[in-house]
Amino acid sequence: MIKAKAYAAQSSTSPLAPFQLERRSPNPNDVVIQIAYCGICHSDIHTARGEWGPTDYPCVPGHEIVGKVIQVGKKVKKFKVGDLAGVGCFVDSCGKCSPCKSHEEQFCENHAVYTYASTELDGKTRTFGGYSTHITVKDKYVLKVKKGLPLERVAPLLCAGITTYSPLKRYGTKKGKKVGVVGLGGLGHMAVKLAKAMGAEVTVFSTSPDKQADAKRLGAKNFLITKDPKNFSNYAGKLDLIIDTVSAEHDFAPYLSTLKIGGIMVLVGVPPESSKLRSTSLIGGRKHLAGSLIGGIKETQEMLDFCARKKVFSDIELIPAEKINEAYERTIKGQVKYRFVIDAETF
Amino acid sequence: MIKAKAYAAQSSTSPLAPFQLERRSPNPNDVVIQIAYCGICHSDIHTARGEWGPTDYPCVPGHEIVGKVIQVGKKVKKFKVGDLAGVGCFVDSCGKCSPCKSHEEQFCENHAVYTYASTELDGKTRTFGGYSTHITVKDKYVLKVKKGLPLERVAPLLCAGITTYSPLKRYGTKKGKKVGVVGLGGLGHMAVKLAKAMGAEVTVFSTSPDKQADAKRLGAKNFLITKDPKNFSNYAGKLDLIIDTVSAEHDFAPYLSTLKIGGIMVLVGVPPESSKLRSTSLIGGRKHLAGSLIGGIKETQEMLDFCARKKVFSDIELIPAEKINEAYERTIKGQVKYRFVIDAETF
Repeated sequence: MIKAKAYAAQSSTSPLAPFQLERRSPNPNDVVIQIAYCGICHSDIHTARGEWGPTDYPCVPGHEIVGKVIQVGKKVKKFKVGDLAGVGCFVDSCGKCSPCKSHEEQFCENHAVYTYASTELDGKTRTFGGYSTHITVKDKYVLKVKKGLPLERVAPLLCAGITTYSPLKRYGTKKGKKVGVVGLGGLGHMAVKLAKAMGAEVTVFSTSPDKQADAKRLGAKNFLITKDPKNFSNYAGKLDLIIDTVSAEHDFAPYLSTLKIGGIMVLVGVPPESSKLRSTSLIGGRKHLAGSLIGGIKETQEMLDFCARKKVFSDIELIPAEKINEAYERTIKGQVKYRFVIDAETF
Repeated sequence: MIKAKAYAAQSSTSPLAPFQLERRSPNPNDVVIQIAYCGICHSDIHTARGEWGPTDYPCVPGHEIVGKVIQVGKKVKKFKVGDLAGVGCFVDSCGKCSPCKSHEEQFCENHAVYTYASTELDGKTRTFGGYSTHITVKDKYVLKVKKGLPLERVAPLLCAGITTYSPLKRYGTKKGKKVGVVGLGGLGHMAVKLAKAMGAEVTVFSTSPDKQADAKRLGAKNFLITKDPKNFSNYAGKLDLIIDTVSAEHDFAPYLSTLKIGGIMVLVGVPPESSKLRSTSLIGGRKHLAGSLIGGIKETQEMLDFCARKKVFSDIELIPAEKINEAYERTIKGQVKYRFVIDAETF
């Protein structure tokens, strides 16, 4: 057993507080990672507070993990001690179903083992996430991280990065394409950077005029304040693809109107409520509204390699563990540019 | 001028009644068609009654037209007198914009001239539809109809046929694919026949248990009563594509749950109200909700040729003009298997 320090929520209303846990010693296919940094994702907050259904407490959140391999099982060939490694939103899956075989383990038909607040394949052993000093994970579900990168800025790529990279890639983002990004937060700022790095012209839709300068700095060419309907009519039929990162209820119609014929708007944010949709906003111009959920291990590795090559990293604010609860409040208020990352040395 | 007899609505509340109109003598690129049959589409009813916004009366509906060419302009090479011809939902467009150039004239950015209740490219001359003995149309917008087919059953292909053929084709319907069809009416029964003719296994979703035998006869392998939620859970993750023909508000979530990962549900019916959509029903399984609007001239010709080759025609009830108002009432109540077609000799 490996003794690890962590931060956990003990109930839906309690603040996160120091917590001791034991990670398993490596099985033949496991690697043990000493965590360096872990990002704070909005999902962490929803889960820690039981907002997405009942959570099994204690809950150690965190699925944007980077660190160093300090131990490997005897069958592990993919990693050796001293390698840098990343862990994202899931740590195991059945490996046998059709989605697993087609490298979309996040849709495993039998049991996708989420990094925290989930159970291992045995259906009993609970999983604890990256707000911790250590984690033990099966090698196939661990990502390789290149040396020489700003690791604290790499951590958020494991969720915010792959969540936006996957639909951008799937729907053909490249030079000559026009991509819209709705919302400039943790996911949105990554969508802007990635779409720009893929060669697209990027347009940011935002409610906050004060984000304009930042949008441009991150790589956007155009910035539209969503409160003015004229901004939408000026953009009618212009965009190939929209990545919608907003996680509050909103009307899709104005955004859909800015798509070209056959264009696609992809939802990656999860509003708790239903939104209204008029069929005509899809039928006129035969448009598509799609959803996308993180990405498989193979694609996550491809994304990490792309980001290393293109020097695309998250904009972050590094915090010690004791500031996690404060960071949650600021994340909810949108007061972060653009991701909090916890320094694991402070657990 | 060509004197034509027709049926027209004179106001949103008046029944359709006999009406005289003049069709233009052929311009150099025009053909004059003596109409044999015209289908009754639900859009006709919405427009005749001003339910989709104000209608400019008198209104002669009808955009599912087949007949014989009786006169051609001197530049016409595509048709000669005696040829069979079809006219669908539009009769002209700018021909210069990007959608027109990519054979999607229905999305013309300048002026798609609809077959009725629209204006010609001059912005003034009104268009009158197929509830009539004759129509004059520019040759490029007229479809070729092969000889030897049951023409009265070909007429509905010009709208109901292309509306369902286009998305079935676009999203790869073929042998080995599983296609769902929601609603078994004018559009739905064509979707079943076409998907089956393309080689797919077809599943019909319907509220009416009494349509089961018919669904099987039309080519469906499976029939699901939508009132029982178990029918949806048994079908979770099974379908590649769904064509949703329902034009009343309904919840998309149960249908989306029956799609495979990456699957597509296409809306071709137009509910007057918004429907509710939960983002999670798209994000889980990265699914797509799309819209589709009829099809361009090139694709409509492809569809007519496909239907002639595969012997796919509409199931119809042939009526004389004097029964149009009664047919409207029965169409609204769903009391038709599956399309009313007017015999143009009775005008």
